[in-house]
Amino acid sequence: LMIGDGLGDSEITIARNYAVGASGRLNIDRVPLTGAVTTHSVEEDEPDTPNYLPDSAPTATAWSTGAKTSNGRISTTPGTDRDLTTLLELAQARGLRVGNVTTSELTDATPAAAMAHISARGCQGPLNMSACAADLKSAGGPGSIAEQAADSGIDVLLGGGRARFDQVIPPGQPNAGRTPLQTADAQGYSVVTDAAGLQAARPGTPLLGLFTAGNMSVDWTGLPAARPASGPQVCQEDQRPADEPSLADMTTRALELLQAPGRGGRKPGFFLQVESASIDKRNHVSQPCEQIGETMQLDEAVGVALDFAEANPDTLVILTGDHAHTSQIVGADQEVPGFASKLTTADGAVMQVSYGTGTTPVGQSHTGSQIRVAAQGPQAANVIGVIDQTDLFRIMRRALRL
Amino acid sequence: LMIGDGLGDSEITIARNYAVGASGRLNIDRVPLTGAVTTHSVEEDEPDTPNYLPDSAPTATAWSTGAKTSNGRISTTPGTDRDLTTLLELAQARGLRVGNVTTSELTDATPAAAMAHISARGCQGPLNMSACAADLKSAGGPGSIAEQAADSGIDVLLGGGRARFDQVIPPGQPNAGRTPLQTADAQGYSVVTDAAGLQAARPGTPLLGLFTAGNMSVDWTGLPAARPASGPQVCQEDQRPADEPSLADMTTRALELLQAPGRGGRKPGFFLQVESASIDKRNHVSQPCEQIGETMQLDEAVGVALDFAEANPDTLVILTGDHAHTSQIVGADQEVPGFASKLTTADGAVMQVSYGTGTTPVGQSHTGSQIRVAAQGPQAANVIGVIDQTDLFRIMRRALRL
Repeated sequence: LMIGDGLGDSEITIARNYAVGASGRLNIDRVPLTGAVTTHSVEEDEPDTPNYLPDSAPTATAWSTGAKTSNGRISTTPGTDRDLTTLLELAQARGLRVGNVTTSELTDATPAAAMAHISARGCQGPLNMSACAADLKSAGGPGSIAEQAADSGIDVLLGGGRARFDQVIPPGQPNAGRTPLQTADAQGYSVVTDAAGLQAARPGTPLLGLFTAGNMSVDWTGLPAARPASGPQVCQEDQRPADEPSLADMTTRALELLQAPGRGGRKPGFFLQVESASIDKRNHVSQPCEQIGETMQLDEAVGVALDFAEANPDTLVILTGDHAHTSQIVGADQEVPGFASKLTTADGAVMQVSYGTGTTPVGQSHTGSQIRVAAQGPQAANVIGVIDQTDLFRIMRRALRL
Repeated sequence: LMIGDGLGDSEITIARNYAVGASGRLNIDRVPLTGAVTTHSVEEDEPDTPNYLPDSAPTATAWSTGAKTSNGRISTTPGTDRDLTTLLELAQARGLRVGNVTTSELTDATPAAAMAHISARGCQGPLNMSACAADLKSAGGPGSIAEQAADSGIDVLLGGGRARFDQVIPPGQPNAGRTPLQTADAQGYSVVTDAAGLQAARPGTPLLGLFTAGNMSVDWTGLPAARPASGPQVCQEDQRPADEPSLADMTTRALELLQAPGRGGRKPGFFLQVESASIDKRNHVSQPCEQIGETMQLDEAVGVALDFAEANPDTLVILTGDHAHTSQIVGADQEVPGFASKLTTADGAVMQVSYGTGTTPVGQSHTGSQIRVAAQGPQAANVIGVIDQTDLFRIMRRALRL
């Protein structure tokens, strides 16, 4: 499952125009069977009433569990706060290998919803639990998202967010005085913190890769959108520090580890979620180059997934976003009420990108449009047409026979 | 071919949420095979260079002719101003019946590109030719778009724009002193001007229906978007004057006339383009209710087309837009830099729609995102994936064996 956080049709078109030209095609475009997915969440107090502007917590909960929830919730029910079993958990219980890869903090909403259950997405580490008293281990809960990840037994966990795992569990909680990283280590995780460590990792023990303290670095940089428009600019590429793996690197290694022959040469099959998180994060702050660069990180990872699927044609690949976002292509010389930047594209033409949903450049918001979903492999044809995010759970469950 | 002018995924989602709720489904959603279509035009002076913000002239030219052109051009080549043969003309030459239906002026860009060839979309009537001297009949050209329609022999022409057809052809031109309406009449057209006339029309002679002087009336009205947001509001429905047919009425009659048995009971087959034009026009002026109402007019017409296709399964139905547009769903209580309106939807929830691409409420613009295409019937599966608007020409040409 390949996720571009905040990857609507507009973000795809912006990246295509910039990187390969309007008539070029990305790996994202190569995933053959296509449809649209609705992304709304529901209200906490009225779970039959939609909220047309979801955040990444309920959207990831939708495909992870097959159920709608309210904004901010991680795989728990709206109002009643019951845990919702995730596809990853079902796969793990059936003996499949499982992986969770992201460029955000591993405890951020999208990766969290695959593996954790908590009432508020902000409760990422043991010191971030003020909104989640009922989820404390001392209250009989599963603890913060970092603690849940450390306890998960997931075969491959890769991303940023090391600072959450370095928080010291406070007095009164199980494992007080230790960090989630230490508890993960005690439970058999191999911990790696840079690209070399990732390359050296071997199958047989679960792997926890935490490559940055917070979100992983963006790969491209450039001028932010402004009023009047910045640019015309050409983005600065390849800015990611060499000791941080790319999303494609993480995807490649995750597939190798999940597919490695086990006892008696057996390959039990696997479920892997891969997220390019900062398409969304850099859209929120009106940074077109960074948004495009992270879309291209996803694109490279999709290429890895499609190559894997070509060699392993029993693989279902699903590519989608979690919600639509702000950025829109407007006329090259047009004045807009929000913030804009002009980019010189692979076509040698100027594309102006507008950010018009927030009153400050760093305050742009998600939008509520349906977004693209694409798939190939077993059950892939079920994405054609108009489906809801919760349907993705059922499609993957059927493909994995869970 | 069913066109929603300015119908991007955001406009579909807005209409669905408002009219049937987020989990409801429109007729638009029922068209089963789906993909995305790229919509860019090209530069007049550099036809290999894309323009990422098309208008309706090059987008309709793309599916009508299979070729990209520059903004403002109607089925003519960029720079060189050569005529591009249209699918409608190919169908007509092969003896198929042809129809062209719209809620805009019949001479507006989208219907024009199916049937006319002119260098500037504004040259709609014989008195609007200042930008199109080379297209004057006295210069050996085909005349204004209204004159070309009158000369076209198209079996069914329905829409607004009667004022263009009532302009008196000026001295020095063929048919000077007469109007395009009079020349159409002289060439055998039955002319109708209201819903009763449309109902009474019989097969056997070509039909020209001109129901309003300009664009046809919108079906719903409401408050425009404003800063701060207008609403929460409920739209006023069924506002169209009774003597104007709905788009569904026009579609129903067009299908009946195009499919009526001819000499010896023969049905030669047909090509029909149907456009709901004011989804775009009311999006340009930040009118969410009017935009949604015109999307629902399209939806009703799509229902007519799908019913026809069910009874005639050798029918290819293609549904798409011509380009993306401004309107975005944002948070119900969010402040935006542009203009917004809050609507109380079929779900009983508040949806806020933002218009943020123009600095005035009446100056909103198209956007450059890829948009949805859906199809059923022969060749329909070719819309799956990512295609360009020009591919629609080839898909329809194959389906019609032209």
